[in-house]
Amino acid sequence: MIKKILIANRGEIAVRIIRTCREMGIMTVAVYSEADKDALHVKLADESVCIGPAPSKDSYLNIPNILSACILTGSDAIHPGFGFLSENADFARMCRECNIIFIGPNENAISLLGNKAAARKLMKKSGVPVVDGYEGNIENAKEALSIAKEIGFPVMIKAAAGGGGKGIRIVRDENLFIKEFNTAKSEAKANFNDDEMYIEKFVENPKHIEIQIIADNYGNVIHLAERDCSVQRKNQKVLEEAPSTVLTEEKRNYMGEVAKRAARAANYNSVGTIEFLYDKNGNFYFMEMNTRIQVEHPITETITNVDIVKEQIRVAQGQKLSMTQDDVKISGHAIECRINAEDPYHNFRPCPGVISEVNFPGGLGVRVDSSIYSGYKIPPYYDSMIAKLIVHGKTRDAAIVRMKRALDEFAVVGVTTNIDFQFSILNDEVFADGSYTTSFLNDRLVNNK
Amino acid sequence: MIKKILIANRGEIAVRIIRTCREMGIMTVAVYSEADKDALHVKLADESVCIGPAPSKDSYLNIPNILSACILTGSDAIHPGFGFLSENADFARMCRECNIIFIGPNENAISLLGNKAAARKLMKKSGVPVVDGYEGNIENAKEALSIAKEIGFPVMIKAAAGGGGKGIRIVRDENLFIKEFNTAKSEAKANFNDDEMYIEKFVENPKHIEIQIIADNYGNVIHLAERDCSVQRKNQKVLEEAPSTVLTEEKRNYMGEVAKRAARAANYNSVGTIEFLYDKNGNFYFMEMNTRIQVEHPITETITNVDIVKEQIRVAQGQKLSMTQDDVKISGHAIECRINAEDPYHNFRPCPGVISEVNFPGGLGVRVDSSIYSGYKIPPYYDSMIAKLIVHGKTRDAAIVRMKRALDEFAVVGVTTNIDFQFSILNDEVFADGSYTTSFLNDRLVNNK
Repeated sequence: MIKKILIANRGEIAVRIIRTCREMGIMTVAVYSEADKDALHVKLADESVCIGPAPSKDSYLNIPNILSACILTGSDAIHPGFGFLSENADFARMCRECNIIFIGPNENAISLLGNKAAARKLMKKSGVPVVDGYEGNIENAKEALSIAKEIGFPVMIKAAAGGGGKGIRIVRDENLFIKEFNTAKSEAKANFNDDEMYIEKFVENPKHIEIQIIADNYGNVIHLAERDCSVQRKNQKVLEEAPSTVLTEEKRNYMGEVAKRAARAANYNSVGTIEFLYDKNGNFYFMEMNTRIQVEHPITETITNVDIVKEQIRVAQGQKLSMTQDDVKISGHAIECRINAEDPYHNFRPCPGVISEVNFPGGLGVRVDSSIYSGYKIPPYYDSMIAKLIVHGKTRDAAIVRMKRALDEFAVVGVTTNIDFQFSILNDEVFADGSYTTSFLNDRLVNNK
Repeated sequence: MIKKILIANRGEIAVRIIRTCREMGIMTVAVYSEADKDALHVKLADESVCIGPAPSKDSYLNIPNILSACILTGSDAIHPGFGFLSENADFARMCRECNIIFIGPNENAISLLGNKAAARKLMKKSGVPVVDGYEGNIENAKEALSIAKEIGFPVMIKAAAGGGGKGIRIVRDENLFIKEFNTAKSEAKANFNDDEMYIEKFVENPKHIEIQIIADNYGNVIHLAERDCSVQRKNQKVLEEAPSTVLTEEKRNYMGEVAKRAARAANYNSVGTIEFLYDKNGNFYFMEMNTRIQVEHPITETITNVDIVKEQIRVAQGQKLSMTQDDVKISGHAIECRINAEDPYHNFRPCPGVISEVNFPGGLGVRVDSSIYSGYKIPPYYDSMIAKLIVHGKTRDAAIVRMKRALDEFAVVGVTTNIDFQFSILNDEVFADGSYTTSFLNDRLVNNK
């Protein structure tokens, strides 16, 4: 059994992991960059180790330093959080070779699911619906065009190794195809050193609906229902809710079973998320599987009352799932707003700086996952997310009202935040009626500013 | 329907009430003493009015000033919170006479239940179990002694108008009875200007178990199960939990029905709490009914997911209960720790002063109801409670573990608090096994310091 975990991350997710470790009686080691010496995760952990200068490549991505810190502190396991090394199969392998438990899935699953084309092939073979497309080896742009014509426009060109919106093109006009294909291919080569491409049908105005699953090492897999993460800006989620307004109980169960099939197909053995595109006719298509804890996991915890990080640690130390599918019950509705230090009215530019004063919301049905405090200086090197505000209500309307109330109480003095922007989402009628899709934010709230 | 509520209180309960008002779309008016001009409830309310100097009698108990503030701000209703004017029948009547809705029960119920002897008589008549005793008019000490002998020692002598531990004596020895009776009677006269006394059997080492009820104006009454508030120091609750370890589902339902009977007997029409003594044989006896929202109401909200303040406001504006008894479901276990600025190791003396820094706990299953912030100066004039920390767990053990984790994160710099003392309660084996009674704190944790 794990006695001490090194948390190879920072910010609110590091604090989040410490919380569960403490409840499980597991000691924690924080690692931190020189810029993070006053960070909350460092204050809350039992021990802490500085692993290098501020730039991530020198600290939070510095594998030798992190492994050394782990060995020096006698930690049995590493929790990678999200981002940074969390989906790095090499890192997972190196942990194993050092006899350190990597708290995540096996390295083969990471590797397989990290290649979008390979994952697509596997899912198709396993009966998980994928968008019409072609995942064979595409020789050149001319061949690509004939594939695209066969699928029918609009199509999406994607880099197999892609991520973060790089190497992706949507093409609606046959005449523009070859130019766009070649640009995307060069972008893929430049960004991922891998220009393997694939093509699929472009789904117009889908919802982004994802299913949280947990798998153990004994063949048990459960799902914890869905999250609707369609409120996005440049593929970054801004606000998430669970359950989704568009799923019936029957559809939820069906998608859940499909997600479990996907996890089984990949020999998955940790917590993970299967992301689906969900079209206006209720068809859904595998997009990708995230092989880590996600930012938005608390909304699922809120409606299911399951500590997902706890299950993740339990599974990693070889325990069986602590519950069956029948034990999973959904109660009420949850919404998460990501609170970022950024200026939504100036192209969302990050706004690091000193938080001179902060007041967190509280009371019934309010959860705050944060890493800030009065006097905290947000360093300019990392993601701009400073807090997650999660609310629970009996109904979606009650959750929306509660979120507005909580945002209203949330005072951050000294830096600009997106709190007002979150209000404008909650007040939008398309958000209110639940019909919003991934184009919602751009169409209604971003372009207009 | 109420459009604007004046909150005739301060501290966390004022903040608590503002939260629900905001979720209901009701405007709020804070009142404050000169010492409270920087208080959080003033910052969060829509409007605020200073009602006088620091001493409570000049501000929070100053009825003319409060009623004037209410009329001047055009408020339709007053929420009295707890303490201060919350159980003052005259104040409730004056509100009514000014066409202001008093958010609480009718003045007759307050008046009746405020007289402990009258309440006891009513309950006995209505089939609510009361401790063996005598509530007739006691002429003198000699008559009292013969009554006491008939009941059998130990007995409890109580002032009918009593409260706050004044005018109460436990007498185990017949020879001491007359002296104690006369002292208690003088104390009652001095404190309440009313020396009506009554005598009842003293219940040894009971638990304090109370039932939350809600009644509307249409004869509907429901109960929201019980709270175990046996962790007390000098009749002040320190930590509360729900549900209690000693009640079966059957017993809970039975006590709940008895509590509803008590509420009906008093023509009750608001939220209220029936406090019972619960002896080691499972017998329970009516102690008193609190005709207001209670400090510890959040633990009930946590396990039932009912916003009790919302129901209270709904009922006050003439709406029916929004749920039936069958809708009330208990889920998991909740604990509340009262966080006080006091020094448990120096006779719990209050420790007002400036909070230079505060870090609130957060994450899954943690609720904070508080009125403090970094830089806040706790005035010396009021109750020492600065926050309530409430946790939810699937089981009692999970809730205890979570509370320890949350207390560990709760940093208050600048003033002494009882956070360590709360740890010592949670770590005590008698607390852990759930068998603790009202003498627990004194026996195990207070006298030893």
